[in-house]
Amino acid sequence: MKKTVVDLNCDMGESFGRYKLGLDEEVIKLISSANVGCGFHAGDPHVMRNTVALAKEHGVAVGAHPGLPDLLGFGRREMKVTPEEVKDYFIYQVGALKAFVEIAGMKLQHVKMHGALDTMARADEELTRAMCEATRGISPDLVWLAHAGSRGVEIARIMGLKVIQEVYADRAYNADKSLVSRTLPGAVLKDPQQVGARIKQLIETGAITTIDGKTLELGFDSICVHGDTPGALEMIGTIRGTLADHDVAIRPMAELI
Amino acid sequence: MKKTVVDLNCDMGESFGRYKLGLDEEVIKLISSANVGCGFHAGDPHVMRNTVALAKEHGVAVGAHPGLPDLLGFGRREMKVTPEEVKDYFIYQVGALKAFVEIAGMKLQHVKMHGALDTMARADEELTRAMCEATRGISPDLVWLAHAGSRGVEIARIMGLKVIQEVYADRAYNADKSLVSRTLPGAVLKDPQQVGARIKQLIETGAITTIDGKTLELGFDSICVHGDTPGALEMIGTIRGTLADHDVAIRPMAELI
Amino acid sequence: MKKTVVDLNCDMGESFGRYKLGLDEEVIKLISSANVGCGFHAGDPHVMRNTVALAKEHGVAVGAHPGLPDLLGFGRREMKVTPEEVKDYFIYQVGALKAFVEIAGMKLQHVKMHGALDTMARADEELTRAMCEATRGISPDLVWLAHAGSRGVEIARIMGLKVIQEVYADRAYNADKSLVSRTLPGAVLKDPQQVGARIKQLIETGAITTIDGKTLELGFDSICVHGDTPGALEMIGTIRGTLADHDVAIRPMAELI
Amino acid sequence: MKKTVVDLNCDMGESFGRYKLGLDEEVIKLISSANVGCGFHAGDPHVMRNTVALAKEHGVAVGAHPGLPDLLGFGRREMKVTPEEVKDYFIYQVGALKAFVEIAGMKLQHVKMHGALDTMARADEELTRAMCEATRGISPDLVWLAHAGSRGVEIARIMGLKVIQEVYADRAYNADKSLVSRTLPGAVLKDPQQVGARIKQLIETGAITTIDGKTLELGFDSICVHGDTPGALEMIGTIRGTLADHDVAIRPMAELI
Repeated sequence: MKKTVVDLNCDMGESFGRYKLGLDEEVIKLISSANVGCGFHAGDPHVMRNTVALAKEHGVAVGAHPGLPDLLGFGRREMKVTPEEVKDYFIYQVGALKAFVEIAGMKLQHVKMHGALDTMARADEELTRAMCEATRGISPDLVWLAHAGSRGVEIARIMGLKVIQEVYADRAYNADKSLVSRTLPGAVLKDPQQVGARIKQLIETGAITTIDGKTLELGFDSICVHGDTPGALEMIGTIRGTLADHDVAIRPMAELI
Repeated sequence: MKKTVVDLNCDMGESFGRYKLGLDEEVIKLISSANVGCGFHAGDPHVMRNTVALAKEHGVAVGAHPGLPDLLGFGRREMKVTPEEVKDYFIYQVGALKAFVEIAGMKLQHVKMHGALDTMARADEELTRAMCEATRGISPDLVWLAHAGSRGVEIARIMGLKVIQEVYADRAYNADKSLVSRTLPGAVLKDPQQVGARIKQLIETGAITTIDGKTLELGFDSICVHGDTPGALEMIGTIRGTLADHDVAIRPMAELI
Repeated sequence: MKKTVVDLNCDMGESFGRYKLGLDEEVIKLISSANVGCGFHAGDPHVMRNTVALAKEHGVAVGAHPGLPDLLGFGRREMKVTPEEVKDYFIYQVGALKAFVEIAGMKLQHVKMHGALDTMARADEELTRAMCEATRGISPDLVWLAHAGSRGVEIARIMGLKVIQEVYADRAYNADKSLVSRTLPGAVLKDPQQVGARIKQLIETGAITTIDGKTLELGFDSICVHGDTPGALEMIGTIRGTLADHDVAIRPMAELI
Repeated sequence: MKKTVVDLNCDMGESFGRYKLGLDEEVIKLISSANVGCGFHAGDPHVMRNTVALAKEHGVAVGAHPGLPDLLGFGRREMKVTPEEVKDYFIYQVGALKAFVEIAGMKLQHVKMHGALDTMARADEELTRAMCEATRGISPDLVWLAHAGSRGVEIARIMGLKVIQEVYADRAYNADKSLVSRTLPGAVLKDPQQVGARIKQLIETGAITTIDGKTLELGFDSICVHGDTPGALEMIGTIRGTLADHDVAIRPMAELI
């Protein structure tokens, strides 16, 4: 069944103090859901407030993007943390962002794991459960945003969370629905035409072609795009153009449940 | 008019990682309101969760005790921050603690400035207003805990916040209702008898004797005690004994409004 | 007496983790001395090593640029620290950078206060003395780089340090040799012609014209340029061009003592 | 061959800001070498200066004890860092401590990995090599302090470092010369008599009895003791008493090479 509406999500609010990262002011105009840094791997209170204001101005829904307490490593280095530690880090960060969102008169929409937490969660179900528990504890209305077809989707559902599945517009997939490691050739799709073709395929058939040429069905409602790479704006433009050509509307993920 | 009920508040949750500070497990049994560190000057997500659980177990109400982003200086060193920066630090920290409190099935009761923020607020009304705005924005139900008779009490009231005024059981006062600087002799009262006499005077007459012998009336509903000094438990015991002797009940501050 | 040689110094190595700041790779080709961040206000161990390697590759001398422990505020917010605290922060940061410099087979050339430390030092001679003591303690060969004509120059000399005085190419001066506050109009010179004219005046007469039109003599041996502002490279190009037109060589400051 | 002299080493300088850890003032009187925290996992510039001063006062040699950049986890949580990252962390931390040591008129004696770095080094020779390279680069005179009989001892020697091997007085050993994990029963020896007997055995025979009853020969010149556990001082007293009874002198490790 052809898609008629999808969400576009993108990481935002990853600047820190005097350090600026990403093209938030431009990207915000092109997406429907923002994953906002919460101060551990990136972001600070000032950046969080500004990012929430920016999202509000452009009618974009806000989600929390909590990470490991490792600003130096941008939350991308795995750390041996316990499920209890991760749960507490989630409550702290999501709670902090929620306060900014509510003061702005909005409602926090979703939660998405950042960086190494995502990698670690795939290898350790207890960690996934701990993060889901934190999210559910903060509000049962929060949407859990997770990789389409991943074990994390099942775990979150079993725990009673609403789940939205996402695909990556610009990453190659393995046959087991995991992303091809960035260290391998072809992992990142840089050709807008290739990305456009994938979006078309996803919308029309609900499937993608894996790196080894197989056809892989992926239930999904959100497409993850990037705002901090060269050519990011053009790539998002291509995706939006393809969606428009196929009469697919772009709406925040909470409206798709 | 003689007091029949007061709140006893104390700073708690100021440990960090492997570092332990304060006698929280003992002090919690003796107070009615806990001012809990929020991770900037002290405290971490794990400590926050544990401190909230401890408070719940002992029927103690929880307040937020946000500080400057200066763990190394324990939030006690003044920093030239703008009102907007302080406001954002408050939203972040109070929001984070509120999440832990609500997940524990409790309601965040109050907010109290920590360390140098308190000193800075006295010299800059804009800073006080910024912190009050953050607090009111998070919830109009939050109580603003401030020095009895201070300008900050007025500001918070004008801004529509509920205010509870506190006196320090073990600190000498100047005639202008400010605390005598710790750098001056006699600033800290270490004699339990002297503290007991002050509590008696406060309860019976609503006044204290200043360091230069004047009688100073102080409207108040909460007494601040310390849990991290030598003899802390004995001192709190003396205060509680004096209150009991005069039939003064101890209740969380929110019940006194 | 006309100048025949000057040093050009510039702040460098102020990136952090994934955050990039400044045009180090370009600027390094245009200067003779680099003030390298040491991890407190900016910079990290990886950035420090890379910046030292970059300086070595281009024959640029390396100095330490220690700051306050405030990454969030980029070391630009004044903090109430004691002389002893500042001294320890200097020893720590300069010692750390010195290790990278020596492992690269170079010698640490100079030390320059960063951001708010510079402002604080002007108001508190004890702080200046503390930082000079730390510098002298690490090595009596280290050059103290300070504002031309400032009290700090005298203090450092009295303490036995070699001193190089610097002028700012792109900042307006008050009659007392202090920089015009950035909050005032005209504080920052943005017109390359104006900057070129100032450099010419400095080289030929050893004086500049203050913001209120007075002529101010300034002994100096180094010119501070900026690498993180729009048009930075063009501005440095203008300065270098003016120096070349007047047969002024550019050499690391240690060679000018 | 019976030992006639050994080194006693102990972790020190692990306080941070207002947080105090360990009984440094007491322990320093009982040891010959101090492993001093360098600000990443514990310690701060002020603590480092004070600890170096304390060591000097008591004739104790100072070594660096660098850790992972994880104050919250006390450097005890493994992190996926690259050899290059670890090398830079070592240069930074050892360089910083070296500056304090030299300003005090002493010479930095040794380097010892802290916490999870030690665990990670056992599983990844590249990490060990990176840390050894950093140490050698700072000074070829620095002693590398490592577990008796470990692969790390060989690597350090191949790289040209002087090595001192240490045994843990209060930890059970596996037959492969590794320490029994703290999570297993019997991992930590708490009985002074048992520890005394082990010290006697080590001195007289150069061997210990493993947790499964085997006799294990261990070349060693230093004994690691702990200063932050209950009964720490008594335990060190027992060890010193046993050494005295057997006419074994206690000297800083650099004198034993």
